[in-house]
Parts: sequence; structure tokens; C-alpha cells
Amino acid sequence: MTNAYQTTPRNRVRQLRDNARYDKASVHRILDAGLVAQVGFVQEGKPFVIPMIYGRVDDSLYLHGARKARIVKLLASGAPVCVNVTLVDGIVYARSAFNSSMNYRSVVVFGTPRLLEDDAESLNALRTISEHTMPGRWDELRAPHERELKQTGVIELTIESASAKVAEGPPEDEEEDYDTPVWAGVVRVETRLGAAVPDDRVIEGVEMSPAAARQTGRRP
Amino acid sequence: MTNAYQTTPRNRVRQLRDNARYDKASVHRILDAGLVAQVGFVQEGKPFVIPMIYGRVDDSLYLHGARKARIVKLLASGAPVCVNVTLVDGIVYARSAFNSSMNYRSVVVFGTPRLLEDDAESLNALRTISEHTMPGRWDELRAPHERELKQTGVIELTIESASAKVAEGPPEDEEEDYDTPVWAGVVRVETRLGAAVPDDRVIEGVEMSPAAARQTGRRP
Repeated sequence: MTNAYQTTPRNRVRQLRDNARYDKASVHRILDAGLVAQVGFVQEGKPFVIPMIYGRVDDSLYLHGARKARIVKLLASGAPVCVNVTLVDGIVYARSAFNSSMNYRSVVVFGTPRLLEDDAESLNALRTISEHTMPGRWDELRAPHERELKQTGVIELTIESASAKVAEGPPEDEEEDYDTPVWAGVVRVETRLGAAVPDDRVIEGVEMSPAAARQTGRRP
Repeated sequence: MTNAYQTTPRNRVRQLRDNARYDKASVHRILDAGLVAQVGFVQEGKPFVIPMIYGRVDDSLYLHGARKARIVKLLASGAPVCVNVTLVDGIVYARSAFNSSMNYRSVVVFGTPRLLEDDAESLNALRTISEHTMPGRWDELRAPHERELKQTGVIELTIESASAKVAEGPPEDEEEDYDTPVWAGVVRVETRLGAAVPDDRVIEGVEMSPAAARQTGRRP
């Protein structure tokens, strides 16, 4: 593996270029922090964007869905895919509407998907997705049944190119606007994993899942 | 306006159909709660997904960007667009990996974009986007300069069809799994607007923006 994704016309960031990152560490850090990926694909010439959970190992993103789902069938066909993961960190109150904006961490990934046909590979990928979303939970659960695996389409998306964009810090205003008596700053947007609410049908005496308990307070 | 979006092969939800909603009230409520929209489009046959801020009035979504930006030029050309807004509400810890999932509110919108050419229309749309992201702020700021408007491409996306999908509540497990001594429940995912951090260069004596102050504690 090299340390950065090649910049091509497809993934090169044109606007606010100073905020762009192509190194794998930056791209992977944002992917690993997100909970949901927006997966874009083309069907009959038209765009579709669907939210999916995911997991990552090296340059592979894993996705899954019902094997009969439209998006899984389309991904299984190897059609090109674009994935966006965006984490919103703040609303930037500048001294003008023009310079007002958001602070965020965002990744755009381009790649070619393939359906995993091998059961061991599928199971590994499902574990990766599960561990991404609920770390430590996989080992608390029974193994998937054969029929569950058959109903699930597991997709590996090899990242061919990617870019990260990070906007942070205070507003950047026109020099003349700094002299105006207008409040400016950033309203933080905070996402946090909160309380774990038990299902009514948990058997009496069963202890809280350590995996779920560890999530409380975590911030994507 | 009718009260629901027509269901067509394009917007019909196939998986977990019981969670689907086509009524405008459900679609609009989720759009109005989101901060960022994932905007999908096709360029040279390939999919792109870009996060953008937005605003809504009736069946129109408004987007904006630098007038010279690739996405603005493409949207100005009237190419078909798909927009997804997803709000994550919880991680669902079921008694099996198969039934584990997320609670969320999500909308997928399909439409045809057009560039607003009229200055009054553009200004109205920019105000809509600003009020969506930072309610009340527009009137605290100076009017946009002519040159700022010239640099900004404002897009109206008329919603042609849309669907909402809402997953909520406890895990739904296989009947046989309810007898296993495994904790199950939901870990809440909470997004909240937090503290307003003033910019270092705010002129001494200038009071906190009432618009920004009102944001603290708001939940998308």
C-alpha cells in the first residue's frame, strides 16, 4: 500500500483546495469515525443515493443488504460506485451570509464493487461491518445461521481513489467585515452515543452487554 | 399540491416496506430536520455524491455553491439528481448480527435541477438555505454584495418524487432468539447543537448573536 490515493480528475477537490487531503491516514480516519455511508450508483443513466452501514479494512469498504435488494444486485454487477461519509462538526456564523458555512469532515470514495461469493470471506466482511458499528458485539452473539448468510448480499468495494475534505476553525471573513459590530463564531454540532435502552423482552437477570455499555459517551 | 408523492419504480421502497412513507408531511419533516444533504449526480456515466447544505420551501430544495464549481455547472445543466438526507437515531443491538441494525430517519428525493438566473429569486433561495441552517441569522447580517451573488450558483431542485424511511423502536428478533440470555436494546445516537464559540476577532462589547444563542440545545 502507498500512503496516499492518487489524485485524478475524478477525485481532485476543486473548491477550497486547501482543505483537501489525499493521504490514506486522513481518509481512513474519517471513514472509521462515521456510522452511515451514502452510497451512490447509476441505474439506467440516473443517480441513486442510499444510506448504508459499512466497515473498512485497508483499502476495502464492506457493505451489505438483502441479497434480493435492488442496490445489492446492482453492486454485485460491478457498476461503479461513489461513497460519501460526512461528519458535521459545527455551523460557522461568519459576518456575512457569503462566508457562513459548516465545519465538517468528509470523504468521497470511488471504487468498483464485487459480491463476495465465498462464505468465509462474507462472514469476515459481516464481522467487519458489525465491529465498525458495534465494536465487541460480534463475540457476544450466536454465529449467523446458514439461511441468514444466504439471504445476505455482502459487497466488497475496493477504494480506487478517494479524497478527504476537512473544514474547521473560526469563520474566515472579508477583511472589511471584521470592523462590523456583528457577533461571529461557531456553534458546535455534537454527535454522541447516549444511553443504552434495554428491550422489554431481555430475560430477567441477563446483564447489560459490555459492548453496548462501552458505547455510551463515544463520539463519531 | 397533493399530500403525497406518487410512488413510481424509481422511488418505491422495496426493502422493509412497512417503514416507507410517501406522504409529504413525513418527507418534509425529515428534510427540515437535516443539516446536510448528500447530492448524487452522474457525470460521464459515473456516480458522484457530494455533501451540501440546503433549504426547502414546498416542493423545492435549494442548493448553492461556487458558480464555477463542477457540481454547480452540472446541476445548472439540468441533469437528474438524487438527494439523500439521513438522520441516525440509534444503534439497534439485536440478539443476532442478522437482526442488528440502525434506527434512522431518511429521505430520498429525485428531481431535476435548474440554475436560478433571476437575482431576486437567487436571493430568496439563499435566504431559505441560510434560514434552514442558521434560523434568524439572515437579518443579523449585511445584505450580500453584488459580487458575492455573481460568484454564487443557486440551484432549485423541484422534488418530482420522494420517499421517506423511518426505523425506530426495539430490535425485532427471530422468535427462537428471544429465549437466549443475550442483552438486547438500542444505544441512542444523539446529535445536538452545542456551545457557541466566539471568534477571537469579535469587536469588544458586541453581544452574542440571538440567532446563534437560540441554537444551543437544538436537536436535528
